[in-house]
Amino acid sequence: MTASSDDSEPLGQIRLYCAAHANCCDRVRWSLDYKRVSYALVDLDQPHDAAHFASISPFGRIPVIEIEGIALTESMAIVELLEELHPSPPLNASDPTTRARVREVYETVNSSIHPVQNGGVVRHFRPELSGPEVRQVRADWIASNLLKVESWLWLNTGFAIGSSFSLPDIFVAAIFQKGLSLGINPPNFQALPSIGHS
Amino acid sequence: MTASSDDSEPLGQIRLYCAAHANCCDRVRWSLDYKRVSYALVDLDQPHDAAHFASISPFGRIPVIEIEGIALTESMAIVELLEELHPSPPLNASDPTTRARVREVYETVNSSIHPVQNGGVVRHFRPELSGPEVRQVRADWIASNLLKVESWLWLNTGFAIGSSFSLPDIFVAAIFQKGLSLGINPPNFQALPSIGHS
Repeated sequence: MTASSDDSEPLGQIRLYCAAHANCCDRVRWSLDYKRVSYALVDLDQPHDAAHFASISPFGRIPVIEIEGIALTESMAIVELLEELHPSPPLNASDPTTRARVREVYETVNSSIHPVQNGGVVRHFRPELSGPEVRQVRADWIASNLLKVESWLWLNTGFAIGSSFSLPDIFVAAIFQKGLSLGINPPNFQALPSIGHS
Repeated sequence: MTASSDDSEPLGQIRLYCAAHANCCDRVRWSLDYKRVSYALVDLDQPHDAAHFASISPFGRIPVIEIEGIALTESMAIVELLEELHPSPPLNASDPTTRARVREVYETVNSSIHPVQNGGVVRHFRPELSGPEVRQVRADWIASNLLKVESWLWLNTGFAIGSSFSLPDIFVAAIFQKGLSLGINPPNFQALPSIGHS
């Protein structure tokens, strides 16, 4: 499936391997779409070349992007590469300290909030839990941690960090959307519901 | 305490807040030392200005660095900022795709291996475990995941990625050192023991 088109794309065909309901995948898709970079989307929930996917993602991780002759995992590595190859429109700030704040926030989502709410991680630690119990554990973790992070964000502008749209707007919205799907309560948050429903 | 000195340091006093045995802190200290950037080290296991630390790290997270007039958490955001402010000697590659590989590997350590072995996370999920049981759970997670990552690294050179020393050498060595302290068995690994003991 082709997700978006851009005749100016100079890099040859980009291929992105994703699954539905994976907020790590949403981060990359939304970044590609914001930058109007064309790509072919391989939905792993649909029939696909499983042998090829296994060859480029030996541990079965998603998202994976094929770009510039390599296959790359880790959403933050992917979006940083996209920022280097397609700097306009930017998804990071132009000055070093604001850029550091951008990375601080998206990394908090990626390494402090996301891994512990991952369904596989919850089941690794608590294999006795039922499906609804796993969902509740995940929702509680996302909600309590997003409440902390929210105090850093949307302080003076309509953007998560600084004065323009950037990667934290995407990373925070993606995990908030995941939280909503797991049942977190939007009125508990001040600024997040407006982005989560936009 | 002053950890290292460099008379050419142009940025004023950098202050790094760390605790012993925190491999996230080791990543930043080793990066600063490799780049010969001077900094004052605040050891949070020793008497310190707790009110000031609470003001710059409202969630109590470490490491925190005071640099360029801001206080910044998240080791990856810190080391990326150091790379921008102090590019020589480099801790990342000069070409985009190798730089993406560097980020892919250090992010795998930071967001896939580290959070799940974190003592607080293990106790969050399994509060009934004894201290030695927590250590075993942590060691098992580090060992099984490092075995996967090791297959990506030290493929053709004496460096984790590419042809020079870079952030993955530091991030992987720090988590391997943590694993050793928790009792993982070095002979189970091919390349790691040589860096872990160097």
